[in-house]
Amino acid sequence: MPENLLKGKLGIITGALDENSIAWKAAIKAHEQGGRFVLTNAPIAMRMGAIKELAEQCNTIVIPADATSLEDIEKLYTEAREYLGGNFDFLLHSIGMSPNIRKGRSYGDLNYEWAAKSYDVSSVSFHKMMQVAEKMDAMNEWGSILGLSYIAAQRVYPFYTDMADAKALLESIARGYGYRYGKLKKVRVNTISQSPTKTTAGTGIGGFDTFYNFADSMSPLGNASAEACADYIITMFSDLTRMVTMQNLFHDGGYSNTGISEDIMNKFMDL
Amino acid sequence: MPENLLKGKLGIITGALDENSIAWKAAIKAHEQGGRFVLTNAPIAMRMGAIKELAEQCNTIVIPADATSLEDIEKLYTEAREYLGGNFDFLLHSIGMSPNIRKGRSYGDLNYEWAAKSYDVSSVSFHKMMQVAEKMDAMNEWGSILGLSYIAAQRVYPFYTDMADAKALLESIARGYGYRYGKLKKVRVNTISQSPTKTTAGTGIGGFDTFYNFADSMSPLGNASAEACADYIITMFSDLTRMVTMQNLFHDGGYSNTGISEDIMNKFMDL
Amino acid sequence: MPENLLKGKLGIITGALDENSIAWKAAIKAHEQGGRFVLTNAPIAMRMGAIKELAEQCNTIVIPADATSLEDIEKLYTEAREYLGGNFDFLLHSIGMSPNIRKGRSYGDLNYEWAAKSYDVSSVSFHKMMQVAEKMDAMNEWGSILGLSYIAAQRVYPFYTDMADAKALLESIARGYGYRYGKLKKVRVNTISQSPTKTTAGTGIGGFDTFYNFADSMSPLGNASAEACADYIITMFSDLTRMVTMQNLFHDGGYSNTGISEDIMNKFMDL
Amino acid sequence: MPENLLKGKLGIITGALDENSIAWKAAIKAHEQGGRFVLTNAPIAMRMGAIKELAEQCNTIVIPADATSLEDIEKLYTEAREYLGGNFDFLLHSIGMSPNIRKGRSYGDLNYEWAAKSYDVSSVSFHKMMQVAEKMDAMNEWGSILGLSYIAAQRVYPFYTDMADAKALLESIARGYGYRYGKLKKVRVNTISQSPTKTTAGTGIGGFDTFYNFADSMSPLGNASAEACADYIITMFSDLTRMVTMQNLFHDGGYSNTGISEDIMNKFMDL
Repeated sequence: MPENLLKGKLGIITGALDENSIAWKAAIKAHEQGGRFVLTNAPIAMRMGAIKELAEQCNTIVIPADATSLEDIEKLYTEAREYLGGNFDFLLHSIGMSPNIRKGRSYGDLNYEWAAKSYDVSSVSFHKMMQVAEKMDAMNEWGSILGLSYIAAQRVYPFYTDMADAKALLESIARGYGYRYGKLKKVRVNTISQSPTKTTAGTGIGGFDTFYNFADSMSPLGNASAEACADYIITMFSDLTRMVTMQNLFHDGGYSNTGISEDIMNKFMDL
Repeated sequence: MPENLLKGKLGIITGALDENSIAWKAAIKAHEQGGRFVLTNAPIAMRMGAIKELAEQCNTIVIPADATSLEDIEKLYTEAREYLGGNFDFLLHSIGMSPNIRKGRSYGDLNYEWAAKSYDVSSVSFHKMMQVAEKMDAMNEWGSILGLSYIAAQRVYPFYTDMADAKALLESIARGYGYRYGKLKKVRVNTISQSPTKTTAGTGIGGFDTFYNFADSMSPLGNASAEACADYIITMFSDLTRMVTMQNLFHDGGYSNTGISEDIMNKFMDL
Repeated sequence: MPENLLKGKLGIITGALDENSIAWKAAIKAHEQGGRFVLTNAPIAMRMGAIKELAEQCNTIVIPADATSLEDIEKLYTEAREYLGGNFDFLLHSIGMSPNIRKGRSYGDLNYEWAAKSYDVSSVSFHKMMQVAEKMDAMNEWGSILGLSYIAAQRVYPFYTDMADAKALLESIARGYGYRYGKLKKVRVNTISQSPTKTTAGTGIGGFDTFYNFADSMSPLGNASAEACADYIITMFSDLTRMVTMQNLFHDGGYSNTGISEDIMNKFMDL
Repeated sequence: MPENLLKGKLGIITGALDENSIAWKAAIKAHEQGGRFVLTNAPIAMRMGAIKELAEQCNTIVIPADATSLEDIEKLYTEAREYLGGNFDFLLHSIGMSPNIRKGRSYGDLNYEWAAKSYDVSSVSFHKMMQVAEKMDAMNEWGSILGLSYIAAQRVYPFYTDMADAKALLESIARGYGYRYGKLKKVRVNTISQSPTKTTAGTGIGGFDTFYNFADSMSPLGNASAEACADYIITMFSDLTRMVTMQNLFHDGGYSNTGISEDIMNKFMDL
């Protein structure tokens, strides 16, 4: 790719678990586009072998950090700033986890401590990353911050339980901090609401395959892949989208605005 | 009022702090419409003198309960069921509190323990009230559950800080539980997104008066009063709105869909 | 029904074709609630026998009028005002027709004269009814005007072709005139976005049955019936909803905010 | 610009009136990015001197065409295809006009023939351009079609009158045809909802300056310029956004999701 859309830009990419991750593909594309960045992941979630391999491919380092810990985030920014030699132009938040989903608790049987954990890991960590960045003055003007969301923030997918609420919270935080960071430093903050994606995290959710196929049949372009999402992320990090902020951007092959597709109608007709 | 829209219906009304509260007015109107209900409030938030007076006026009792405590909610339902002589047909959640707002912390300086408290008190308590109700099978079929929200769930009002995120979470919970309770027992769950209202809670937010007047000038019908909101709540508890569920309903004199009003333009032109 | 929610109120109800029509049920309920009104329909769409029967049941008259004709609307208002003895408090617009759907033209093969007809009959007629009302000063303060819409205004239902665009136009007109009429005379204007309904108009659309069943399986409360819609209309005409304006109100058993239901998932799991 | 995001891509750009036009800037940027395209405008709207100059700058030709005429569109596509040597990868619709606004008719005094003209020129022309393209099979797979919209499609701006309705119609058409073209040929269709822009068209609307300044004070990043919009258009025409379709994308410096800004609050505090 010769576009060099991120040439001279520095950043941080969280959440690259393995090669199925959106963040993994985003890292590879950001590198191709001339961006320099540090990789990070929670020590507990990190598959060290895998992410090291990615770091090599992207000619960078991994700095483990728990995004729910203010101290870890501070340390991450300090070390990343030192390694990269400057403040950040882009930041990808790709972090989400629900103990209630992992342990199969339904929405009518939530463990509330776990729900608080879901919000803290999946949503509040986004706020923390921005609040610490602001306090450390770690972002450059016209920087771009992205979170990854899902349409469960708007509509109910029963299997998604408290993760839906976490995504609604995440998108609200993107708007709230987007307003603030826009005024302060021209930094924009958005979320991308992505198709169901066959990542390691995604496929852990019950009924994922059925829903994946349903969404694929509903979307006129089919489900958007992790790779296509990474392309979209590049545009949102580039200077060509400077005035887009506080938005939730659907990257889903048209799913979100399709009421019913002819494919689904045909399948349903035969039932 | 002779309409008797809630005749034979039993319920629970939370959050009636004083006579400026929306819940206070809702209690009076629900009583006029033939509904029977129990009043409740958090022990810490309760002004016992005031709420006792309301209870007398509505010919009912007060059962103190902290809506963040599963035990308190269980006790509330058990006692209310006993007092009223049956399961509930309506339930009003009118609870919200942000320590960050109270202590003047800006959105870039959130105390995260306090933010977790904001979510727990203002949003998760709504889920808890429904989860406990489901587990105790405390709602009648075709019952109606309402929460009170604010447009900060969709758009940024800088002074509203983490309460905006709490409202986004609340509305997501309404959708999520509304789906579930609809399937299970035909119970509907909605939120009403109300104009800025001169309640004791509302006026505690910095810049409230300025914003109140701005919203009033923006809305073609002016800001909706607490009393008008109580009327609207009655319709949502009545049998005439049985198929409305999982919605966030703007009750705001048209504010939400007004981009700019002529009043605001005229005022702005003179600046 | 003893509620008398429309006691003393005068109005106009369009679009009561036969006993399956939402407008037909709304007329019966408005009559039960103490409202007085005139029925009207386009001469071309009117089944005189049927609507005469409804008029008798509601103790009123039928005034034929083509809602695309300013002259017809003026005549309608003049005669209705005379018959009822006053200005109007409520107005139901329940008019829609697409020649492209009738003649089976797909969205990629629209006849544009017919599309213009779809807009004129289904959407612009709503504006005309309001503009003429304003010019004749035919509405009372705090009056309520309603149009009937469908979620195709937000999401694509391929079989709905140019009627989807007509509904988007209708909802925009509700907002635009709602602002204006709110400022001028405290009149509120809203649309109700109703479940697919087995009316004579609805069932004329290709694939209707399949889609009706799909929506029913998707909605936690099932599809909302025409009768339930009529109940909802009554609340929106009553004084209890005075501050709700410029809104599109989903009356759909939760369909609009359900991404997928367990019923649908189960059906598609086997495919 | 070395990015070459449109290298090898062919297209059509409508609506470049003069150097203030968004389409004008889009043409220059598309040329810089390696795209080849034909310029077109309605004979009646065209300032031949100006557009000829742009054509020279972009090394292309101008083909006059009235986008409300199916014949003109066919001729345009035939000639453009011949000139460019292939089918189209991108198509920009930047056409809008309201006789009611031009002649100062308020929303309560619409001339309905003129309103029909507003819809036909500003909205239906978008459908016509797509329907003709489909019939002539003039788009390449994975092509991108864009219309320009304004937030008046969602919220009321009193001075925008029937143009608001036209934009709602335009956005609906983008969804409807986006579904269809996505299924047929992987072509995506979106609208960009742009800040108020000091184009020749924009400034013709009454009260524009006041509103421009209001929106600028409301938006955390300020109003988005025509040039920034052109950048954004490039990303939407590039291969990096292939799975974004049927969306209305706000390009507005955060205006759409800002309820109130501190600037606006400060100004209104003194009133």
